[in-house]
Amino acid sequence: MSFLNTTIKIAVIGGGSWATALIKILCEQNNVQIRWWLRNQRDIDHIRKFHHNPSYLSDVVLSPKKVKVFEKTTDAVKGADYVILAVPAAFVRESLQHLTAKHLQGKRVVSAIKGMVPDLNILVTEWVSNDFGIPPEETCVIAGPCHAEEVALEKQSYLSIASTECPTAEDFAALMTCRYVAANPLDDLYGVEYAAIMKNIIALACGITHGLGYGDNFQAVLVSNAMQEIGNLVTALDARERNLSSSAYLGDLLVTSYSQFSRNRLFGNMIGRGYGVKAAQLEMKMIAEGYYATKSIHEINKIHQVNLPITEAVHRILYEENSPAAVIDDLKKLLK
Amino acid sequence: MSFLNTTIKIAVIGGGSWATALIKILCEQNNVQIRWWLRNQRDIDHIRKFHHNPSYLSDVVLSPKKVKVFEKTTDAVKGADYVILAVPAAFVRESLQHLTAKHLQGKRVVSAIKGMVPDLNILVTEWVSNDFGIPPEETCVIAGPCHAEEVALEKQSYLSIASTECPTAEDFAALMTCRYVAANPLDDLYGVEYAAIMKNIIALACGITHGLGYGDNFQAVLVSNAMQEIGNLVTALDARERNLSSSAYLGDLLVTSYSQFSRNRLFGNMIGRGYGVKAAQLEMKMIAEGYYATKSIHEINKIHQVNLPITEAVHRILYEENSPAAVIDDLKKLLK
Repeated sequence: MSFLNTTIKIAVIGGGSWATALIKILCEQNNVQIRWWLRNQRDIDHIRKFHHNPSYLSDVVLSPKKVKVFEKTTDAVKGADYVILAVPAAFVRESLQHLTAKHLQGKRVVSAIKGMVPDLNILVTEWVSNDFGIPPEETCVIAGPCHAEEVALEKQSYLSIASTECPTAEDFAALMTCRYVAANPLDDLYGVEYAAIMKNIIALACGITHGLGYGDNFQAVLVSNAMQEIGNLVTALDARERNLSSSAYLGDLLVTSYSQFSRNRLFGNMIGRGYGVKAAQLEMKMIAEGYYATKSIHEINKIHQVNLPITEAVHRILYEENSPAAVIDDLKKLLK
Repeated sequence: MSFLNTTIKIAVIGGGSWATALIKILCEQNNVQIRWWLRNQRDIDHIRKFHHNPSYLSDVVLSPKKVKVFEKTTDAVKGADYVILAVPAAFVRESLQHLTAKHLQGKRVVSAIKGMVPDLNILVTEWVSNDFGIPPEETCVIAGPCHAEEVALEKQSYLSIASTECPTAEDFAALMTCRYVAANPLDDLYGVEYAAIMKNIIALACGITHGLGYGDNFQAVLVSNAMQEIGNLVTALDARERNLSSSAYLGDLLVTSYSQFSRNRLFGNMIGRGYGVKAAQLEMKMIAEGYYATKSIHEINKIHQVNLPITEAVHRILYEENSPAAVIDDLKKLLK
């Protein structure tokens, strides 16, 4: 696919901070048209009038020449070359309920979602292939290490774009590369997607242990063990050679586990300090993907039986009403 | 070597925070005698009188039943089973100048030093073997991930103890294991020692980029690339199978690169914010090992010619008077 002198049309489904950051990056290209679907009518009206998203990254200018907003997903995807999914995993089925295979036919679908499809417990790209008939090689995922907040500030960032075969990832990576973003294509779709999901569970664990009073020494060991846990899982699910130290895997884990911007870490921190799950969720307002990911990976692993001590510890805390202190006390004996 | 019902005598050479933390850990054993050499006479007098190190981790109680202090290294090592070296690498030759092969004969020597021997550019354990005739299998190193400050607070920590063959590491790891420390033996002496040295260079790089205004997204990529750089170096120097995601390598890098306690990160931060090298050193008071390590690894790599872009960037800033902003601007294009 060559984009020289043609306008690329990109539908973006979702109105959160990550969607807004991706649109900002895409708008750095000369030849793009963004067709943006948001759920919230007030946000839509505000963006049409003031060219800023009032709810997330509100400093980012959304030029009306490049960005059009839509009330209906069916309108947003019309004529699009790419459809980017950037809603929380928990809402992906609901958000796409009016779309059929026909609406998406011939388009490339990009998942910017870091979670599994609810109830089905499959990857978003798998679901898109199964339910909308998009060939796997025409799907890709956007992974970090990248916080939306730093994109808004135009701080140098790197993205990992993964597809089953490189052309799709390469084409899309070219669209995501600009003055302050370097996007790197990879051909490990499932590995990158699972690692991106796992990292939110680990960030949650980091938050929990920090909330309990564990320090930097412990977190370094937790993250090292987590990297091995992620390696074990992705190998069990899709065995192949991978450099797990590269940015798509380790980098993505680090930015989520160590950053002040991480919602999953913050959520875990509240749990560690004694908040109940419901109370922490209410307090947070935004969704911590790791909460749902913990359940999904726990379910998937009933089949694969990989040793995932950190994921299981988080599951015991969030879903089995065990005390965080007692669970982490058990976990610390398993780490080394 | 079995230690049941016998008293283990351990000489500790060095009076800094890491030496103090190691002594605290060792004193958790019932059957140890610490023979501690410090350079500073005022500290010696204070410890004899008040049983605290006035200069570092001054909360830590140093029981006179277990800890004796000495003015002379030759006295401290008398009858010792183990000699722990815990001075800054820059001072290791000077600190041991009065010791000969005879003084250390039959003892195991443990390096807690994260740097190369000045001028010689060899590992501390290599130097101990070459100059004092200690068989390599009777030497070992203590690596992290572990900040002394958190040991003082009795926060759960993990240590990596590496020797060429496991018995020495296993015996010493048993001595370093207590209620709040788990020590893990490994048989990769040189890999762990080089990784421990490299991590200080990387922490310095993290500090420089942070000081220049780069954010969490960039640091995650920097640390991921650093992990690969460390892997490349240790493979070139001592090729073997290693799990680089384990605590001894990745964990040690993380605790140094991300922690508020890291002196190397702080030193780098000052450089990034515009301090000159001399000014930053004066301001710091403590030695940032990464400064010397950068020179040593740069020299060693003249022979091995491994691709070490981060180490070379730090060298250009610290030793070749290049502007940090310009060097990191070059470096960022090499990362992915």
